[in-house]
Amino acid sequence: MLEDKNQEKTSLAELGEFGLINHLTKHFKIHNSNTQRGIGDDCAVVSSEGKELLITTDLLIEGVHFDLSYMPLKHLGYKAVMVNLSDVYAMNAKAKQITVSIAVSNRFSLEALEHLYAGIQLACDSYKVDLIGGDTTSSTKGMLISITAVGVADKEDIVYRDGAKATDLLVVSGDLGGAYLGLQVLEREKQVYNVNPENQPDLDGYSYIIERQLKPEARRDIPELLKDLEVTPTSMIDISDGLSSEVMHICTQSKVGCKIYEEKLPLDPQVISTCEEFNIDSTMVALSGGEDYELLFTVSVNDFDKIKGNPNLSIIGHMTEENQGMNLVTRANQEIALKAQGWSSFNE
Amino acid sequence: MLEDKNQEKTSLAELGEFGLINHLTKHFKIHNSNTQRGIGDDCAVVSSEGKELLITTDLLIEGVHFDLSYMPLKHLGYKAVMVNLSDVYAMNAKAKQITVSIAVSNRFSLEALEHLYAGIQLACDSYKVDLIGGDTTSSTKGMLISITAVGVADKEDIVYRDGAKATDLLVVSGDLGGAYLGLQVLEREKQVYNVNPENQPDLDGYSYIIERQLKPEARRDIPELLKDLEVTPTSMIDISDGLSSEVMHICTQSKVGCKIYEEKLPLDPQVISTCEEFNIDSTMVALSGGEDYELLFTVSVNDFDKIKGNPNLSIIGHMTEENQGMNLVTRANQEIALKAQGWSSFNE
Repeated sequence: MLEDKNQEKTSLAELGEFGLINHLTKHFKIHNSNTQRGIGDDCAVVSSEGKELLITTDLLIEGVHFDLSYMPLKHLGYKAVMVNLSDVYAMNAKAKQITVSIAVSNRFSLEALEHLYAGIQLACDSYKVDLIGGDTTSSTKGMLISITAVGVADKEDIVYRDGAKATDLLVVSGDLGGAYLGLQVLEREKQVYNVNPENQPDLDGYSYIIERQLKPEARRDIPELLKDLEVTPTSMIDISDGLSSEVMHICTQSKVGCKIYEEKLPLDPQVISTCEEFNIDSTMVALSGGEDYELLFTVSVNDFDKIKGNPNLSIIGHMTEENQGMNLVTRANQEIALKAQGWSSFNE
Repeated sequence: MLEDKNQEKTSLAELGEFGLINHLTKHFKIHNSNTQRGIGDDCAVVSSEGKELLITTDLLIEGVHFDLSYMPLKHLGYKAVMVNLSDVYAMNAKAKQITVSIAVSNRFSLEALEHLYAGIQLACDSYKVDLIGGDTTSSTKGMLISITAVGVADKEDIVYRDGAKATDLLVVSGDLGGAYLGLQVLEREKQVYNVNPENQPDLDGYSYIIERQLKPEARRDIPELLKDLEVTPTSMIDISDGLSSEVMHICTQSKVGCKIYEEKLPLDPQVISTCEEFNIDSTMVALSGGEDYELLFTVSVNDFDKIKGNPNLSIIGHMTEENQGMNLVTRANQEIALKAQGWSSFNE
């Protein structure tokens, strides 16, 4: 009765996820003096007598964020934790605690949930994070997992999205595009399996990219590495939705532009060979693939010597004045405007 | 492929929610010294240099926890916040921040979500709580809301479930059973509406119990009242699943028994009259109704004079030695064993 189906309605896909959150929360006020930062970064920040607490939450839904036909439940549990820890590390903080809420339909047995929690536990043990609570209920369809992670940092160490300066270097950890291509390979094998269940999946030669999709690791080592290198990033974000979309968040919030150099994008050889096989442009995959859970950050140009040559880090470009826009410099030395092609769960 | 449908399986309904959480999390270790209390209370407790942070999370799912045919979205948003704040107050703490994650199918418009967030905002403003983050995504079916609340308290003020002593008094705030009966009235009107959509709902005479169901208030005032009265409860819990089920949590965790006196159960006149109309036993409703979001707590018998006669509080019984069991003393002075008839989302 109360959904009022006859009025003119705005579809959620028109707004996208970020537009939707902004729209829905723009009139909310802050009441508590210890709320340092609310919506709009990887984590919220709550201060508590000197130390800052960082809080982040993510929701994973079967059929939207994962497909159990190729995602083992143990891996799903592990990945669901990684997705959240990655947001804590993206604030240059230490992850400490998580809550895990799940809803499952009666299709799932206890043994299925044991596999899920085995993955959650492995993640907690590997990353020294404590499971401190949650909620467990039934769903009318499928499985969903809602995780909230709590981290801690000294106030002066926290890195937000809005601190990039026009001359800063743009740096990314690890390599890009693997998780997306791993998904493409798994989707292809699913199609083959659907046509002929007798067929054995042939995943030789794809082990790296499949692991990037099924068992990603959050980059806990990067904040530690940066501390050792005595580098404090001016801004940082994790790459969950694709490089392009994430660098645009930094630019928009820091009020700067950027130049990314195509030739500098770090690609694993398996990413390159799989792109050739699938006839996809590897630059597009690196820019828009998503789910890599690498860290993207900016550092002062004075830190160049500390960063260059580090095998964990690639300098892929630099920031510019805001009016110069956000651009990719191609191998042919052409500048083209970046597009946010990050994955949006509201699009079909 | 990986759900392995052919093994012998344990159904989730066999275990129930608490059994399930215990089973799934019993092997998890605590890694961080600031994790004071993990799973097993209304909130987890994380210490941060003197102040303790309290964290709690709840998941609400359409078709399981709410029915949008009689639950206006604004009320749903408000109630979803109350459910979480109630858990913070049940620790004798102050609620400070919330994160809100939602997943919605494409059946919902932006305007629908605006109503939901209007309710969330009203709750935040009324209870001086800050919305600090969340996640928004699509679902393949219906709506779900996952909220995490953060509270703060001095270490010595926090009240757990496990501190009740054998001679303590058992006290409840407000009155019981209203939310459950409000739901019965709304369900009846829905049936009438389904048969004849022209029929106007007749809700006169049910306003209190319908408000208890659709717009419950968390008892923020009770921790403040107890402070004013200079009473520190020895244990406390909020009544989300029904008095019976909640008192059994206190007894089990505190290793005590209890006697609850039927004649002492606080009932609103509208609860009594609606029970008569529906031909339901009002004691059963008070014990097992659920969703009242009142606070149930134990106090030392020495605090009797401070509590008695307070219009917000009812002394409904006392704790006993564990071997005396958990009992209801009827108006006819018979003792019968309490049953946990709390609502379980895993049962049909």
